[in-house]
Amino acid sequence: MMITDTIVAISTPIGEGAIGIVRMSGPDAFDIVHTIFKSATSKKTINRELVYGHIYSNDQIVDEVMVAKMQSPHTYTKEDIVEINCHGGILPLKEILSLCLKNGARLAERGEFTQRAFLNGRIDLTQAESVMDLISAKTKKGFDLAINQLEGFLSNKIKSIRNQLIVTMGQIEVSIDYPEEDIEEITYNEIRNQLESVLNSIDELLKNAQNGKIIRDGLKTAIIGKPNVGKSSLMNALLKDSRAIVTEIAGTTRDVIEEFMNIGGIPIKLIDTAGIRETEDLVEKIGVERSKGVFNEADLVIFMLNASELISKEDLLLMELVKDRHAIVIINKTDLEIKLDENLISEHLKDKIIIKTSLELEQGIDLVEQAIQQMVFGNNIDMSSTEMVSNSRHISLLENSRDNICDAIGAINNRMPYDFVEVDIKEGIINLGKITGESVEKDLLTNIFSNFCLGK
Amino acid sequence: MMITDTIVAISTPIGEGAIGIVRMSGPDAFDIVHTIFKSATSKKTINRELVYGHIYSNDQIVDEVMVAKMQSPHTYTKEDIVEINCHGGILPLKEILSLCLKNGARLAERGEFTQRAFLNGRIDLTQAESVMDLISAKTKKGFDLAINQLEGFLSNKIKSIRNQLIVTMGQIEVSIDYPEEDIEEITYNEIRNQLESVLNSIDELLKNAQNGKIIRDGLKTAIIGKPNVGKSSLMNALLKDSRAIVTEIAGTTRDVIEEFMNIGGIPIKLIDTAGIRETEDLVEKIGVERSKGVFNEADLVIFMLNASELISKEDLLLMELVKDRHAIVIINKTDLEIKLDENLISEHLKDKIIIKTSLELEQGIDLVEQAIQQMVFGNNIDMSSTEMVSNSRHISLLENSRDNICDAIGAINNRMPYDFVEVDIKEGIINLGKITGESVEKDLLTNIFSNFCLGK
Repeated sequence: MMITDTIVAISTPIGEGAIGIVRMSGPDAFDIVHTIFKSATSKKTINRELVYGHIYSNDQIVDEVMVAKMQSPHTYTKEDIVEINCHGGILPLKEILSLCLKNGARLAERGEFTQRAFLNGRIDLTQAESVMDLISAKTKKGFDLAINQLEGFLSNKIKSIRNQLIVTMGQIEVSIDYPEEDIEEITYNEIRNQLESVLNSIDELLKNAQNGKIIRDGLKTAIIGKPNVGKSSLMNALLKDSRAIVTEIAGTTRDVIEEFMNIGGIPIKLIDTAGIRETEDLVEKIGVERSKGVFNEADLVIFMLNASELISKEDLLLMELVKDRHAIVIINKTDLEIKLDENLISEHLKDKIIIKTSLELEQGIDLVEQAIQQMVFGNNIDMSSTEMVSNSRHISLLENSRDNICDAIGAINNRMPYDFVEVDIKEGIINLGKITGESVEKDLLTNIFSNFCLGK
Repeated sequence: MMITDTIVAISTPIGEGAIGIVRMSGPDAFDIVHTIFKSATSKKTINRELVYGHIYSNDQIVDEVMVAKMQSPHTYTKEDIVEINCHGGILPLKEILSLCLKNGARLAERGEFTQRAFLNGRIDLTQAESVMDLISAKTKKGFDLAINQLEGFLSNKIKSIRNQLIVTMGQIEVSIDYPEEDIEEITYNEIRNQLESVLNSIDELLKNAQNGKIIRDGLKTAIIGKPNVGKSSLMNALLKDSRAIVTEIAGTTRDVIEEFMNIGGIPIKLIDTAGIRETEDLVEKIGVERSKGVFNEADLVIFMLNASELISKEDLLLMELVKDRHAIVIINKTDLEIKLDENLISEHLKDKIIIKTSLELEQGIDLVEQAIQQMVFGNNIDMSSTEMVSNSRHISLLENSRDNICDAIGAINNRMPYDFVEVDIKEGIINLGKITGESVEKDLLTNIFSNFCLGK
């Protein structure tokens, strides 16, 4: 793919801030900035120097700016890049963007700068994907996973596994192509050993992948229960703890992350169950919600009961709904006189964690948090690990390549001809290559980068 | 005021973007960045160069960044400045900010970078104030006013007026101090001529100031009328035209400016009259709203009537409310059979612009927009002017100094002694100096800069 045009975008978040950046990349970037920018000094500038001056439109000052020109190939995209640092309001950014467009640049697609970094060979696909993970990370943990991925942890693992397969396939091909030659023929057993070693490596990567995915994407959690059972109180209690982490430093606004809570490094995304909460005919409503998938899309359900009331028909129906779900049961209002039949609950929901709380007295909230962590991570994960596969696309391709290797081993066990084994191994190599982008289709690229924010 | 500490802040808007900037200013800025940043090359870097590398916390990579060190005094604050360009998510910015704080920087107050630029003498107070106007400008017109102010238009005018007064005062003092000396004594007439010239200059500045203020701050507009008269339709129709201006380029989000419309360069801020709209007992509710000041704080009221209904008791009471207000009257639903007694309306609201619309048929919206412009600017303003006083603080100080000069002229007309004249002129000089910051108290500074966004 030959890139000949110059792209431009606003690269800072939109809003009001001290500084905003308009970024251009491509062969005309320098020419375009020369047309619209006048330096305040006549001194010769050097590569990557922030130069003070003004952006002009027809001799009218548009804004006071600092401009850095960065020569290819040592840039983010490996192309010539210009960054214009202007005042961080919507209007200056929009005006400068317009001027760049008017002078020959094209508005960048989402993620197009990073896509160029990939297409020009500076980073591979897992690194490109990590860039967006870095930006949208909801917890420090998720951020650490992403920075490791950017630094090449996953690329290196995948490449090493893929190279093992390529070596194995080379050996098989020699056996196929030169069956009569006096080359040491690779035996079925040897192939099997090599493939099993690959299988182990893939399993090692997949082991914590679901946890990685949760750390990256967050755990969708629905709190359900009858009206007045304490759902909002629980949400506020959980939020109180977690918000502190996010807002401890002035300058971070709440809006951006308002639907995420951070519990032990796990981003919890609360699904709005207002519809379920508010309606009178609770059960019918749940039916509606279920059909809409709101309830079903939750990774975790927190089911709340009122300790001071007898179990109602509604409770029983809700119990049916959560029975087969990843769920935590909370018996709230334990400060009041207990009327709830706990035995009935634990009989119906045998395998669930049951927690008693009095949100009124602020009792039991820590137990809920521990239960959530327990549900997600169990006891067997090293939370200090920052090398986890976390992206659904990677997980699914790893699983595909795992299937391919299993098929190949099956073929060997059945003493099938080498060609059959080779087909499976080839598939495995292709699937691994798709992770790092060594074998990748254009549609996939478009799909991946369309999730980026503008200007990256 | 001697500044000895180093401040730090996130200087880009908070949100998700490709690039975020953490900025430090002060004597320790370079030392702090040396502690946390490792360049990717060992090459010696130069002043203002964007250097690629990583931010570390205890040997752990925190983020991939570009860092520019800018040596005093040729910087925004005239101090040493470091800008760290990192990934534009909340977490990397927060982490890097924390590291700077941990290593000795102090979190900047709102506007403190610009305040230092002022205290260190790089810009005057009107220029400092224009920085925030640039960032929060809602229309191109408002932005142009601000950039002119940043470039010194207002400073220069004010300084020139103030210098005229200082010369006049000098001449008076000579007359007072050396009354017996053989120095040509300045006559009352001469003083009066000089003061009247100053008065003219101030009036020239104040002439368009109310318009400038509206362009800067926006026009608070309330749409009122009975339920179903078409208030929402009008709002949507006005928004449709104006939103296009703001969202024509992808990447600007609506949220930030959603309550502002741009009508002919005038930012219109719609006041929510939902409360008035929805209630059944309209009049009582208006009474309530009035006491809350919601209705009263509007600069402009748009009063809507239904052409297809007879005038109701409610309409009559609303008419009473708008009678003494800056108001436009809209008779809507002219596509239906007319039952409204128009004569009664024009009799009651003699001096108001009355417009007929059919929002259903999209008729008359342009007339409403023209009426708004007409109401604001009348016929006598040159809308192409970008040199207007726009800040309430400046307007009020200009009005104070105008009063001082008038007092001085009055003293002269009454043949009062020179000392009396001198007192008034001195006040005028001080008031003008407060505009540019030549005479300014600490409280005022704190007040001005507290309206800034963080990091500026």
